[in-house]
Amino acid sequence: MKIVIVGGVAGGASAAARARRLAEDAEIVLVERGPDVSFANCGLPYYVGGVIASRAKLLVTTPQRLRERFAIDVRTRANVEAIDRVAARVRIRDLDSGRTSDESYDRLILAPGAAALVPPIPGVDHAAVLTLRNLADVDRIKAAVDDAAARGPTSPPRVVVVGAGFIGLELAENLVHRGVETTVVELQDQVLPPLDREMTTPIVATLRAHGVSLRLGDSAAGFTPAPHGAGVTVRLASGGELAADLVILGVGVRPENRLAVEAGLDVGPRGGIRVDDRMQTSDPLIYAVGDAVEIRDVVGGGPTQVPLAGPANRQGRIAATAILRPEALPPVRYRGTQGTAIVGVFDRVAACTGAAEKTLRRMGRDFRKVYVHPAHHAGYYPGAEPMSLKILFDPRDGRILGAQGVGGAGVDKRIDVVAVATQAGMTVFDLEELELCYAPQFGSAKDPVNMAGFVAGGLLRGEHPQADMETVLDGAPDGQTVLLDVRTADEFAAGHIPGAVNIPVDELRGRRGELPRGGRILAYCQVGQRGYLATRILLQSGFDVANLGGGYTTYRLFRPG
Amino acid sequence: MKIVIVGGVAGGASAAARARRLAEDAEIVLVERGPDVSFANCGLPYYVGGVIASRAKLLVTTPQRLRERFAIDVRTRANVEAIDRVAARVRIRDLDSGRTSDESYDRLILAPGAAALVPPIPGVDHAAVLTLRNLADVDRIKAAVDDAAARGPTSPPRVVVVGAGFIGLELAENLVHRGVETTVVELQDQVLPPLDREMTTPIVATLRAHGVSLRLGDSAAGFTPAPHGAGVTVRLASGGELAADLVILGVGVRPENRLAVEAGLDVGPRGGIRVDDRMQTSDPLIYAVGDAVEIRDVVGGGPTQVPLAGPANRQGRIAATAILRPEALPPVRYRGTQGTAIVGVFDRVAACTGAAEKTLRRMGRDFRKVYVHPAHHAGYYPGAEPMSLKILFDPRDGRILGAQGVGGAGVDKRIDVVAVATQAGMTVFDLEELELCYAPQFGSAKDPVNMAGFVAGGLLRGEHPQADMETVLDGAPDGQTVLLDVRTADEFAAGHIPGAVNIPVDELRGRRGELPRGGRILAYCQVGQRGYLATRILLQSGFDVANLGGGYTTYRLFRPG
Repeated sequence: MKIVIVGGVAGGASAAARARRLAEDAEIVLVERGPDVSFANCGLPYYVGGVIASRAKLLVTTPQRLRERFAIDVRTRANVEAIDRVAARVRIRDLDSGRTSDESYDRLILAPGAAALVPPIPGVDHAAVLTLRNLADVDRIKAAVDDAAARGPTSPPRVVVVGAGFIGLELAENLVHRGVETTVVELQDQVLPPLDREMTTPIVATLRAHGVSLRLGDSAAGFTPAPHGAGVTVRLASGGELAADLVILGVGVRPENRLAVEAGLDVGPRGGIRVDDRMQTSDPLIYAVGDAVEIRDVVGGGPTQVPLAGPANRQGRIAATAILRPEALPPVRYRGTQGTAIVGVFDRVAACTGAAEKTLRRMGRDFRKVYVHPAHHAGYYPGAEPMSLKILFDPRDGRILGAQGVGGAGVDKRIDVVAVATQAGMTVFDLEELELCYAPQFGSAKDPVNMAGFVAGGLLRGEHPQADMETVLDGAPDGQTVLLDVRTADEFAAGHIPGAVNIPVDELRGRRGELPRGGRILAYCQVGQRGYLATRILLQSGFDVANLGGGYTTYRLFRPG
Repeated sequence: MKIVIVGGVAGGASAAARARRLAEDAEIVLVERGPDVSFANCGLPYYVGGVIASRAKLLVTTPQRLRERFAIDVRTRANVEAIDRVAARVRIRDLDSGRTSDESYDRLILAPGAAALVPPIPGVDHAAVLTLRNLADVDRIKAAVDDAAARGPTSPPRVVVVGAGFIGLELAENLVHRGVETTVVELQDQVLPPLDREMTTPIVATLRAHGVSLRLGDSAAGFTPAPHGAGVTVRLASGGELAADLVILGVGVRPENRLAVEAGLDVGPRGGIRVDDRMQTSDPLIYAVGDAVEIRDVVGGGPTQVPLAGPANRQGRIAATAILRPEALPPVRYRGTQGTAIVGVFDRVAACTGAAEKTLRRMGRDFRKVYVHPAHHAGYYPGAEPMSLKILFDPRDGRILGAQGVGGAGVDKRIDVVAVATQAGMTVFDLEELELCYAPQFGSAKDPVNMAGFVAGGLLRGEHPQADMETVLDGAPDGQTVLLDVRTADEFAAGHIPGAVNIPVDELRGRRGELPRGGRILAYCQVGQRGYLATRILLQSGFDVANLGGGYTTYRLFRPG
């Protein structure tokens, strides 16, 4: 069996190593256009910032290692120019000598990755406008920042990052660490577009607190050479201008599908190479893995593309297994993605799994949601940090559809816990009963995920009517509705939803006569717990009442003020 | 509906609050023997150590709060002396006035908790021999440590902790923080008896590194008053003697079942009050929750008792729901425990969920196991800490039976992830495909849990024969077996399994002729990965070979040297 693999980073390198483990006698040729294989793509921003000090650290493995340990015929600086499916061979150009050669294959694995999207903006080919996808990119960016920094502290480097996605924000943080005056321009009116907007509020706050200038709902309309020096002037769609030593585009990626398209393989509408759950393309001899493929969104059910290292690695493993050990039992299959992702931005963390609310709305899918705002461990133990968790679920059976978390320590753990529950097809009722680690420095007797389960489970069991915060973002929806703040007078004085009246929950039983009969009452507290009790008290007194989910803390995510 | 609740800490307080939320018109009487309700039991060791500085922090809620917010008739310093099941009433003694009164109930919830086990050792009633279960205990311990510490640094306090369970080790750490000369005596030949012995090796190492004197496989045989001063001399079963200002017994708890037994309720062989999955006892009017009840071990299937706050809180919630909202859909049921637990000991963390290997052996249950030793996040990002994960699973279908982890940061997350997978009935094949959060400071593209899944899945699919490390703990099992170390010569020189020969994996293809045909080869590397590749190479060359699971790192857990 001779396997040719196109691309040697995450998916390609994983496929190569796995193929060798499965078959000592296989001939494995790995063709990589760049000079390196398997570098730490996700570490690039941290190398810019100096968090990762040594460039060598970014090389997860080397061509030499793959040759010596895995007996793989590694060819770097070599480009596969064409696939001849009839003859089952590829044409390879050696980028140094310029010579081409043909290589036959029994099976071909395409792992070409994705390229940075470069939007057709006037001036985008200016030398100071870069993207960040590989080590060559990061070397250029680091050199440019180093050069600009050499001007001294009186004239700090200025960098504009276009795109406030995961990599854009990681870059922004690392540029700030380097003393760079950093501006982030984002077309959408939020950062981290995969998350729902309100869940990104704490990330916006920390970016601003650390001096990042954010231009949301704006975009780069053109780049012109700076009047003097090597920089560039960024013209914004809103009309403003930004002077920059460097612009880094982080607006997404597009699958490197040229080879596949030219070979006539099936490709999806967004350009991803189509594969089945064994990563086989429309040609049974050709497999494809990683950022270039279209995969199934397990929550939404439709096709999607996720340029993430975890799925790429698993897909590489699966393709090699499908080729060399098709009889494996249980079968090794790619199950699709649920889009689990995380980002650290200064002292904050945002993470998500499954579908976002906006995605569910776009799909027209019925859902309910809850917010909880617990501490990441027992409040009586020093150092507890607050987090906000949002869980989306199916109102018919409670099945988890998605989750998002934002906060500091412990957010990664809770999203991982919900990610497993989602993958297992669990419901919010299952979240109530999860038995998780508890000691005061690690969690709470009622873990944040349990708490979210209690709220969602109670909601579906009809124990407490809940209204979404959207109802009252601009005050009470009508004259018949009373907005009831059940926190203490001090909390109320420090800030409340406009138009609310204040009756602390501890006084509510005695003062419920003050509330009008006939109208609707929307109760809230700080995080939802006292509002829940107030709702139960009033409900049992015959009022038409609902709890505003997640309380004033949720309100402040929508209206940071 | 009138509900009387006996005991106001975790399960009792949860039941009371939940009952009020469900029924404004219920009469709820909470009777607590002590002066406090709902204190932070799990925080007590950290209050001794000064990590939690304020005693008030330990009071999760107060009688006043339960009265004002939840309209609960709270009676502290009141002891329920007897249950009259025929008349459906309890007799309550006010511990201050000494007066008794009767209280009728429609439903009774028993949440009496568990008492510290005080073994019948001669001298155990000495004033310097204490237990740690409540605030009165912690006050006594703290005062004794404070007194002894006041003697000044030339004569540090000496404390003997009997029992190296979770609380014993938390206490030991906190005593060291206070400058106490701490000795821990444990009957078993390991610390943390719920874990398998080899997984506790790093905990033993950190205890010793921090100056804790460990006496494993030993026990206290008697306590005699110190020749002078207020201390005590601990006579050990091994014959030695330890001088101590204070002895703290942490040898376990026994269910406070006196009331239940005297009332004729069903009680299990280990004293736990028997309940069904709605927490109902053998008397339909009486429920029981928390440390005093016998519950189902979901992995083993048999009855068990877990004195943990998480289960107690959930059980309290479930009992109140079963009483006041029996029609709730889906039903609210206690599913049993899987024994998820965690402990921090200085800079190390140990955690577990499901069954331990020794438990499976005791049950005669068939199992397989794997060890992995990954870093808690990407190795190229600074600060990666190593951990060891052990996963136990059913060899027939791969179903997860249990997991243990030891290391530093990130152990809690991985055990929580496996805990959810276990609860969902997932297999090791599912662990391979978990989609977890990955950015370099939070995890790896192949998360530690994925890695464990890959190893276990490959093992069950027959891809790589694995031998357990127990086979070679005393060198090669026989003259026919070759112990093959495939690490580098430098690694080999720094330490290897006695009797091993060294052929680095990168040279193995060329040197396999050096290996004898006919015998058996047991290959190993540092953590198992190169050993896996070596096994695959040799297997495909016709050798009888197996990989020693988890490599030399696993060996060192068994033989710390």
